[in-house]
Amino acid sequence: MKGKVVIVGAGPGDPELITVKGLKALRSADVVVYDRLAPRGLIAEVKEGCELIYAGKEPGRAELSQDEINRILAAKALEGKLVVRLKGGDPYVFGRGEEECEYVMSAGVPCEVVPGIPSFIGASAYAGIPLAGRGFSSAFSVVTGQVADRSMQEAHLDRIERLAAASDMLVILMGVRELSRILRSVARVKEPKEPAAAVMWATTPQQRVVAGALEDLIAQVEAGNIQNPAVIYVGRGVTWRGRLWRADAL
Amino acid sequence: MKGKVVIVGAGPGDPELITVKGLKALRSADVVVYDRLAPRGLIAEVKEGCELIYAGKEPGRAELSQDEINRILAAKALEGKLVVRLKGGDPYVFGRGEEECEYVMSAGVPCEVVPGIPSFIGASAYAGIPLAGRGFSSAFSVVTGQVADRSMQEAHLDRIERLAAASDMLVILMGVRELSRILRSVARVKEPKEPAAAVMWATTPQQRVVAGALEDLIAQVEAGNIQNPAVIYVGRGVTWRGRLWRADAL
Repeated sequence: MKGKVVIVGAGPGDPELITVKGLKALRSADVVVYDRLAPRGLIAEVKEGCELIYAGKEPGRAELSQDEINRILAAKALEGKLVVRLKGGDPYVFGRGEEECEYVMSAGVPCEVVPGIPSFIGASAYAGIPLAGRGFSSAFSVVTGQVADRSMQEAHLDRIERLAAASDMLVILMGVRELSRILRSVARVKEPKEPAAAVMWATTPQQRVVAGALEDLIAQVEAGNIQNPAVIYVGRGVTWRGRLWRADAL
Repeated sequence: MKGKVVIVGAGPGDPELITVKGLKALRSADVVVYDRLAPRGLIAEVKEGCELIYAGKEPGRAELSQDEINRILAAKALEGKLVVRLKGGDPYVFGRGEEECEYVMSAGVPCEVVPGIPSFIGASAYAGIPLAGRGFSSAFSVVTGQVADRSMQEAHLDRIERLAAASDMLVILMGVRELSRILRSVARVKEPKEPAAAVMWATTPQQRVVAGALEDLIAQVEAGNIQNPAVIYVGRGVTWRGRLWRADAL
């Protein structure tokens, strides 16, 4: 028997939003290496005797470094085991799946990637905020609110401004910490009344949403105690919310 | 028993890329209304006696108009049936899920939306083209290549240029028909050697990928006979492809 690593996107939070293919891999796994953001309900799906390894990834610290994670994935597979790397969202949307897949393959271990529903897609469905469609949006952009290299934050804010100007819907991930500076950039190119929303714990029973106008978003985020990881939306798609299905807890 | 409509994103093509939640709904459905782009392998999952309605959506024509689809969804649910509306990709990414959900709810029928893996996320995983991650991409944009109102095409091309300039990765959906004009816009702000790729039939056994530089993409798309619906990527993420898992048929 030959070992293998399968990097699985677990989706945004609701354990039933993993793909059928991802769940099959998880149930077959001999070893599962999982993140803080992987839905905990899925851990119960592993087979008896499956080794569970928590990789952490709390903001600002990690139980295991990325190098350690890479080495564990390859080493366990080289023992002949089926290793599932379970990640929140999608592995290739700020998930470092590419770093892990590259490492594992360069060690001579077969690797496969199963995509997952990214948080911004899950939150869109469960909060009633369509990203693109006729009459209201023909382009959307997805950007992280914080860059690893803090000296680049000014240039990044300038880029967010240009993305906001060119997009019908701007999606900001991990944007709460820098929210006031980010929204100042966006406000240079969007009207104060531009619809905006923030979604926390998307697709879970605790999903929390605040929505209104760009000019009020900071106050609403504070009042709603919205924290990272949250998804922020700026664009007309937010106005659909009143007429669509929503799974908000509040 | 009360009727209901569940709008389900079926994912990009591989039938196993539907979510667990979506498959459950599909297997319980009394009526399934499905699109051309919904993976056909999933149709076999419906229960005995389930009524199957093909909604078409060939480019430029439809077996059923959007109005007819809306009315069928509501009418079948008002008969007390569980109606699943099965769509390719995600309902809220150019899927018109918002129009259907709004109509159904305004008719007093309960509606729910199950997100799906969009084509550009599925193609990213299966073609080895990560969208965002440290060191190579902190922002990506998704834009349709063609707008319904042809008189807007010039303005839309200008917008694509601005999105390309501000994004590390530009994703163009339904872009093959207008490809030469689109790439001329992109080439105003990106180097001729900027990595670029096009993926057709993503995540199916027929997945076909061409990849190289922006300046060669048109020739490659023609040589590879890549047609809509295809996903086009322009950005450094394409260069990961050589070191990652890929499910290309060729």
